[in-house]
Amino acid sequence: MSTLDYLRDGAEIYRRSFATIRTEADLARFTPEEEPVAVRIIHACGMVEIAEDIVFSPGAAKAGRAALQAGAPILCDANMVAYGVTRARLPADNHVLCMLGEASVPGLAHELGTTRSAAALELWRPHLAGSVVAIGNAPTALFHLLDMLAAGAPTPACIIGMPVGFVGAAESKQALIEQAPAPFIVVTGRKGGSAMTAATLNALASPRE
Amino acid sequence: MSTLDYLRDGAEIYRRSFATIRTEADLARFTPEEEPVAVRIIHACGMVEIAEDIVFSPGAAKAGRAALQAGAPILCDANMVAYGVTRARLPADNHVLCMLGEASVPGLAHELGTTRSAAALELWRPHLAGSVVAIGNAPTALFHLLDMLAAGAPTPACIIGMPVGFVGAAESKQALIEQAPAPFIVVTGRKGGSAMTAATLNALASPRE
Repeated sequence: MSTLDYLRDGAEIYRRSFATIRTEADLARFTPEEEPVAVRIIHACGMVEIAEDIVFSPGAAKAGRAALQAGAPILCDANMVAYGVTRARLPADNHVLCMLGEASVPGLAHELGTTRSAAALELWRPHLAGSVVAIGNAPTALFHLLDMLAAGAPTPACIIGMPVGFVGAAESKQALIEQAPAPFIVVTGRKGGSAMTAATLNALASPRE
Repeated sequence: MSTLDYLRDGAEIYRRSFATIRTEADLARFTPEEEPVAVRIIHACGMVEIAEDIVFSPGAAKAGRAALQAGAPILCDANMVAYGVTRARLPADNHVLCMLGEASVPGLAHELGTTRSAAALELWRPHLAGSVVAIGNAPTALFHLLDMLAAGAPTPACIIGMPVGFVGAAESKQALIEQAPAPFIVVTGRKGGSAMTAATLNALASPRE
C-alpha cells in the first residue's frame, strides 16, 4: 500500500499544470497562436516568470505550425532536443534530425575551427529550406546558423533559438533578433535549454493540451 | 567571411563559463565534493540563483561518485536525461537505462493506475541495488520510487531527484528529503528538469571540467 497521496492521472496532471500556469503567468501580450507555446515553455521549466523573456517575431508561431503541418523536418543542435519531441504530436510524421553524432563532424569542426555543435550544422544544408530549426543547447550553433544564412544558405520556416548558458547564449539570441533572417521564437538572456526548445516544438506540432 | 566575432573554442567556452559561475554564485556552503556538481547544475540552466535550491544529503555526492566508479548503472525516468549523459565522462562504461519505451509499460501503467513514467520504474527492480537513480522529469516517478523503497525494494547508492513542474514536483522532492531512503541530491521547488539532472550525472561521473 502506498503511504503517499498524490495525483497519478497523466491527463489530469497536465490539465491542472496548465490551469496553474494560466492563473499565475502574465500571458496577456501573447497572440492566440503564441499563448499555448508560452504555456508549454513555462511548463517545461517550472517558472512562470520566464514569460517575460519569450520573444516571438510577428507570425513566427503560425509559420512554425504551418511548416510542421506541411511536413517540414525539425533540425536540432542536440540529441536532448530531438529526444524531447513527442513523436505522437507531430502532424506529418516529420523527420527529427540531429547531426551531432555523424562521423564527419569532428573533422569538420577541426577544419572550420569551431565546436562540433556548430560544425554539425553544415550537414543541415540539404534540409534547411522551409525547415523548423531548434537550437536549445549551443550558442556557437546559433551563431554559425546566422553566418550560414548571411552567406546565402536556404532559409528555414522558423528558428527556435534557445541556447543556454554564460558564454554567448544571450549574445547569439540578441543577434538572431537583430538580424531576423527568418521568423523566430527566442528565450532571451542566459536561460533556455533543450527542455524549453522541445516544449516549443511540441506546442507548434499540435494544438492538443 | 563571418560578420560575427564570437568564441569558438569549446574548452575555452567551458573554462570561461565555469569561471563566471564561480564569480557570481554563492557556493560557500558546498563541500569540495558538492561544489563541482552545483557548478554544473548552474551551467545547465544559466541561473546562478539555483544554487540556493540545491540540497545534498550528507555524503551524497561522494556516494554517487563512488558508485559510478564501481560500475553502477544509471537509471533514468526520461530519455532526455539518458541522452544528456556524456558517455565519454563515464568512469566504467556504465549502463544508462531508461525503461519508458519498453513494450510492457503502457499495460503496467494501466494495471497500477499510474503514469507510464512511474510504471516504468517497476522494470528498474533488478538494477536498483547500488544504482544511481536520475529522475529529471516526472514527479509521479519519484513518488513511485519512494513507494517502492518503503515497501522494501533494493536501495540505490544515490538518488538524483529533480522532477520539474507545477503538480507534485515540489511535493515529491520534499517527500524524498523527509523520507531519505538513500543519499540524495535535490533541486527543491518547481524547478528542475532533464538538463540539471544530466548535469549532475556528468559532474559525478568525472572530476574533469
